Amino acid sequence: MAAACEAELIAVGSEILLGQIHNRHAQYISEEFAKHGLYVYYHTAVGDNFERIVESFRIASQRANVVIVTGGLGPTVDDLTKEALADYLGRNLIMDENALREVEAYFAKRQRPMPESNRKQALCIEGGRLLANPNGTAPGQYVEQEGIHYFLLPGPPLEMHPMLLAEVIPTLERLFGNQKVVRSRVLHFCGIGESDVDAQVRDLTATSNPTVAPLAGEGEMLLRITASAANESSAWSKIAPVEAEIRRRLGGYIYGVDEENLQSAVVNRLHNSGLTLAVAESCTGGLVQSMLTQLPGVSSVYRGGVVAYHNEIKNKILHVSSQVLLQHGAVSRETAIAMAQGVKDALDADWGLSVTGIAGPSGGSDEKPVGTVYIGVAGLDGVSEAYSLHLRGSREQIQIRSAKQALWRLWQHLHS
Amino acid sequence: MAAACEAELIAVGSEILLGQIHNRHAQYISEEFAKHGLYVYYHTAVGDNFERIVESFRIASQRANVVIVTGGLGPTVDDLTKEALADYLGRNLIMDENALREVEAYFAKRQRPMPESNRKQALCIEGGRLLANPNGTAPGQYVEQEGIHYFLLPGPPLEMHPMLLAEVIPTLERLFGNQKVVRSRVLHFCGIGESDVDAQVRDLTATSNPTVAPLAGEGEMLLRITASAANESSAWSKIAPVEAEIRRRLGGYIYGVDEENLQSAVVNRLHNSGLTLAVAESCTGGLVQSMLTQLPGVSSVYRGGVVAYHNEIKNKILHVSSQVLLQHGAVSRETAIAMAQGVKDALDADWGLSVTGIAGPSGGSDEKPVGTVYIGVAGLDGVSEAYSLHLRGSREQIQIRSAKQALWRLWQHLHS
Repeated sequence: MAAACEAELIAVGSEILLGQIHNRHAQYISEEFAKHGLYVYYHTAVGDNFERIVESFRIASQRANVVIVTGGLGPTVDDLTKEALADYLGRNLIMDENALREVEAYFAKRQRPMPESNRKQALCIEGGRLLANPNGTAPGQYVEQEGIHYFLLPGPPLEMHPMLLAEVIPTLERLFGNQKVVRSRVLHFCGIGESDVDAQVRDLTATSNPTVAPLAGEGEMLLRITASAANESSAWSKIAPVEAEIRRRLGGYIYGVDEENLQSAVVNRLHNSGLTLAVAESCTGGLVQSMLTQLPGVSSVYRGGVVAYHNEIKNKILHVSSQVLLQHGAVSRETAIAMAQGVKDALDADWGLSVTGIAGPSGGSDEKPVGTVYIGVAGLDGVSEAYSLHLRGSREQIQIRSAKQALWRLWQHLHS
Repeated sequence: MAAACEAELIAVGSEILLGQIHNRHAQYISEEFAKHGLYVYYHTAVGDNFERIVESFRIASQRANVVIVTGGLGPTVDDLTKEALADYLGRNLIMDENALREVEAYFAKRQRPMPESNRKQALCIEGGRLLANPNGTAPGQYVEQEGIHYFLLPGPPLEMHPMLLAEVIPTLERLFGNQKVVRSRVLHFCGIGESDVDAQVRDLTATSNPTVAPLAGEGEMLLRITASAANESSAWSKIAPVEAEIRRRLGGYIYGVDEENLQSAVVNRLHNSGLTLAVAESCTGGLVQSMLTQLPGVSSVYRGGVVAYHNEIKNKILHVSSQVLLQHGAVSRETAIAMAQGVKDALDADWGLSVTGIAGPSGGSDEKPVGTVYIGVAGLDGVSEAYSLHLRGSREQIQIRSAKQALWRLWQHLHS
């Protein structure tokens, strides 16, 4: 059996070390590798400094057999990746005439003159192979030396991602194929805290295959079940009984799996029942609706809504009575219900959902501190209910948590 | 003069190498360090594997004089950071009775029994110092050996961030103070493409102090001017003439600096003029309003708005006439203007802003392909204007770019 892939990912760019951007390539590549059973052992980020890039190659080649490098293939003097690897491997850089014509063609197609500096993008490490870049000027490179496989990829995600999928992963699958595959299932919880989930599944998190691990989520909680096995179907057979056991214990809080989110869970249930929704928001200021309209095709179930930031709008557009607003206040159970009912009626929807609260940092009182939020649900079968929340955190956290709780409460009312 | 800080940041956690989360600590710490003139030379991420964590410490101690480690201080068997550093340094772990009492108190306060496993969080590396964690159970640790300063910090951001600011940065400023300071000014552009900005400032990006570098932004363009100098005021004096020159060439496209964003630029101008805004959205589905309501105190200028996803709502709530909708369609210059006018009137605001378009992936036609978007502005002095956009990208990108262009167009109408 061939050795397993043990990869190190190196991101080159001073802007990463200055905290100006995060190293998003590392996560993307790691996720794709995990899907294909290719192991990643280290991530490294290094600045645009020749000696330190060479030093990173030296260290990586001692602890990894696959080295994936992103960034530093551009035309400027700061782009040093290729030069540094050629130096480290003791090889020359050779002008590739085909690649040069492609770079020239890229500019010609855009009717722009090619700057002289772009010529260096067509240089290839001697004995290596260029990787085509249909989406930009910098080709990638692949070179192998002493059993270590080096891939140099361009920094822009729209150029790097297709090259990773078209060139890097197929090459690695040929080299390290027939390895164990790794599969994961993510369970999404709402309405229950992390420590409560943890307490209920602690015995399950002690196993090593599959593993059960909590993931951080804002306003919700996620558990990832991960199994490795000789093939895909036996990986899933390891996951299935653990998932079933977690559902037996906590199923009422699980609204979705994997890439599902609260808005898609809600929209799926509306689709299935053929019913429509309208939304009225105060403290979340459009966030619930923005989440819903991220989904393509949502227009078949979502009619629209109102951001009623001012009381007059709650009254004028949503027909929340002045008496309710005066007697109970804008942040109250009664106003939440009247907003949900009002938006449902005004927009001719089957269901109305509302959020009203105090997101802070100011606006709180002793009676209703920052984080006091009411959610209203109005709909079929005379449903008309309000839920109160007492949230902590920043304005942004309170808005996100309120929006997710609102979708969660509505989801519970919808038939599956 | 003392040596400069040359830091390596090590994130411990297999979930990072599996791509399940990104290494967000590295960016946060790098940004804070840059503000204080503390240099970061490497980022590393390593999994929950004892030997590989030790190996990372070995490498870091050869190329850095400050090693900041995040994660792996929890109570589980996967939490190995402290044990690995003690092993690498050849020191013992000693139970700290004060820390143990604090961990016990943390659980007592929450009326939960302390699991036996949490005892290990009170272990301290011999000769080291514990760093208080008012926000969780795992204290941090500081230890120095052979001129290398090691800091171990807990993984949860709400525990790590305060500890970094309260303990790590003050210690490093004492150790490496009086170094050069680094200051940056970020200029925010809208309404102009990256390549056009680049072409206009290429001569300025060739200098080394200050540097001028483009930053990736979604739907806008950013330039960062960075200078290092002996003190803060001389850093700013290096930045000022370069900023002035960029403003001379491209000032009309610059709407803000540093932490400002389009929504704060708009809200500031509304505040200054004492005028109010209402928003009507179709394809952006609440995103414009969600961006505006991220800002605390926005209620003094923002009245609310309508997400008119369906034509009936454009007609019924916003009073866009059926004739306009029939003759020109929902995605048209005429509808955009009528929506802006309608929401301004219905919500009694001084200014109305609207977005209507096709965010895709479906819904496009030959005449109006996906990415066709109209922005309407209605307001004082009889202003009533529409702008057409032809955007490319995913649904999410089209929504974000439309929302930013809408705020940008409104901003241009408002008096500074």
